[in-house]
Amino acid sequence: MNNFEYKNPVKIIFGKGTIPSVGKELPESARILMTYGGGSIKKNGVYNQVKEALKNFELFEFGGIEPNPHYETCMKAIELIKKENITYLLSVGGGSVLDATKFIAAGALYGGDPWDFLSQRYIVNVEKALPIGAVLTLPATGSEMNGNAVITKAATREKMAFGSPLVMPQFSILDPECIFTLPDRQVANGVVDAFVHVLEQYLTYPVNSPIQDRFAESILTTLIEEGPKVLANRNDYDAAANFMWSATMALNGLIATGVPQDWATHMIGHELTAFHGIDHARTLAIVLPGIMNIKRENKKEKILQFGQRIWGISSGTDEERINRAIEKTVQFFESLGVPTTLSGYEVPEETIGKISARFKERKSKLGEKEDIDYKQVADILKDRL
Amino acid sequence: MNNFEYKNPVKIIFGKGTIPSVGKELPESARILMTYGGGSIKKNGVYNQVKEALKNFELFEFGGIEPNPHYETCMKAIELIKKENITYLLSVGGGSVLDATKFIAAGALYGGDPWDFLSQRYIVNVEKALPIGAVLTLPATGSEMNGNAVITKAATREKMAFGSPLVMPQFSILDPECIFTLPDRQVANGVVDAFVHVLEQYLTYPVNSPIQDRFAESILTTLIEEGPKVLANRNDYDAAANFMWSATMALNGLIATGVPQDWATHMIGHELTAFHGIDHARTLAIVLPGIMNIKRENKKEKILQFGQRIWGISSGTDEERINRAIEKTVQFFESLGVPTTLSGYEVPEETIGKISARFKERKSKLGEKEDIDYKQVADILKDRL
Repeated sequence: MNNFEYKNPVKIIFGKGTIPSVGKELPESARILMTYGGGSIKKNGVYNQVKEALKNFELFEFGGIEPNPHYETCMKAIELIKKENITYLLSVGGGSVLDATKFIAAGALYGGDPWDFLSQRYIVNVEKALPIGAVLTLPATGSEMNGNAVITKAATREKMAFGSPLVMPQFSILDPECIFTLPDRQVANGVVDAFVHVLEQYLTYPVNSPIQDRFAESILTTLIEEGPKVLANRNDYDAAANFMWSATMALNGLIATGVPQDWATHMIGHELTAFHGIDHARTLAIVLPGIMNIKRENKKEKILQFGQRIWGISSGTDEERINRAIEKTVQFFESLGVPTTLSGYEVPEETIGKISARFKERKSKLGEKEDIDYKQVADILKDRL
Repeated sequence: MNNFEYKNPVKIIFGKGTIPSVGKELPESARILMTYGGGSIKKNGVYNQVKEALKNFELFEFGGIEPNPHYETCMKAIELIKKENITYLLSVGGGSVLDATKFIAAGALYGGDPWDFLSQRYIVNVEKALPIGAVLTLPATGSEMNGNAVITKAATREKMAFGSPLVMPQFSILDPECIFTLPDRQVANGVVDAFVHVLEQYLTYPVNSPIQDRFAESILTTLIEEGPKVLANRNDYDAAANFMWSATMALNGLIATGVPQDWATHMIGHELTAFHGIDHARTLAIVLPGIMNIKRENKKEKILQFGQRIWGISSGTDEERINRAIEKTVQFFESLGVPTTLSGYEVPEETIGKISARFKERKSKLGEKEDIDYKQVADILKDRL
């Protein structure tokens, strides 16, 4: 195991009927900006629950945050914050709303253009941010228990990430009953997203970390079991709760302690969203099998372990086992209704060149060994035509 | 899964060579009291590493904290704190030193007799405490990442617990190389202690919590694999690191989220320490098999799952499987050199009556279903003669 530091102070409030407790978590004197998305919270009753719980607070609203939230939208929220002297942000929605809220929280207190946090990541750090609370309505991104966010600049079709402990939520309320009203597509996306989050931290190379490996495998197995149950019966509370807690555990830093991490699937996937607007999770379902195939030598031991412990693949040559592990993973995603090839989303072959060119320009080296260059990015995408 | 709240803000700094970073975690203006035990830190070099790292700080010392730390000893430290206007406590040692430090941190700022926190637990709460940092030298209790402590009043032979988020360490430094100089007995105790911590949160009744169950099983399996490796070769860094991280994960609240908890083994075990001075972990090794046997109906489903997933017991009647799960657990403890019967520690049968009488007097109802009364405490102990 490698040396590591780990600190995650987010307070999780989990379970049915927990949304009305939001008032207890907020300072009485707060001037709160409630951020939300396209209005699903108005249909499922969450909006009313939050409004009722906060009727004695100074509450402002900023709705209309889109999936893959836009820099341009966030900048409008920052204007409102300055005008109304907002002191606390309350994100009510899924990972996109929460990611936007993190960017807004840091951007509102920054002197320059907050896009710097993304374009100059690791050079320009967040030094202060407004406090954030979250009511999570969609399990997927893990944003509710980490300090990461991904933002898209619509003008330039750039989708990039930043992170800071200062934008971790003070609290996140997770009521699994929010899942009851989700469409199939969002449930499937959430399962795939969480599944790939785990693999980005697990499918690298061994460093003798049995606790982290087994925790990762615990989450994968649970997603494989519970995801289809949620899809089959949206009112299965236990399945919803287990899915929701899996998605949080998949990306709260715990399974990353002391182990190498990959994240190439995400980096390449972001470009597919930037160019073609494909749902984030679906881009992961496309790219991951390509990474597993093209980087099979780098990842050999861990793919074999994944095959054995998750899919029960215990015979055949190493090559055969790796092929079967990729097949089983693809079948799992497809069984959830998520296509896993570029043609499944009508992405033209020329996009591969455009994406590869971006990584060439950025001089990126992706993956846990930083050995995926722009040429190999093209190979990975060609593998998924 | 049950509803839950979870927050654990302890910063973990993990790995070889991390002790010198202690200075970076402490405020420059702090007046620090370094607490420690019987002096093993002077033999293994940890004392010197900490002193060197803190040479520019106002540093005071309080040594001589005993295993199963005494209220009476803690009260002397509180006197010193008041005299020297100490503002920060730094625990350098194992769980006993850290538990004492937690009691001292809360007691120093309390108007009454701090024993109230234990004797009137859930009535008298900690309202403030000095900040605590920890350098952990012995994996076992999990105290490095929680807000719990167990203190013994020597005068009355009472051993009791208290807990508060206010006594969670600000940071804990875990250098697995500290294990290299531990005697066999402390390693074996640490493995048993962590193992039983997991079972107190796992071996209850099912509530459909697959993530928590699998995480618990991950820790158990890792302890079974890594514990003997540490015993066999004290310089096996990877085994030491995996053991150390297992012990922390066993009791940081994570596997307790949303599930019932037992803790009867600990409550009864504390009495064996109070009356006979038996090492804490060893009392758990005595009591746990008795609980499993006497409470086999309450715990049936989870003992069967434990037997199957941890010990590979997949055939036989339920009764036979439960018997074998108990046997395998006993064999594991004994294989570490830890006796599991009262006679193994020369405890006379009359102690059973004394312990039972204490629970009668306290009107205690132990266990996850609060159905273990003083009579059943006696049954459990008689099972372990």
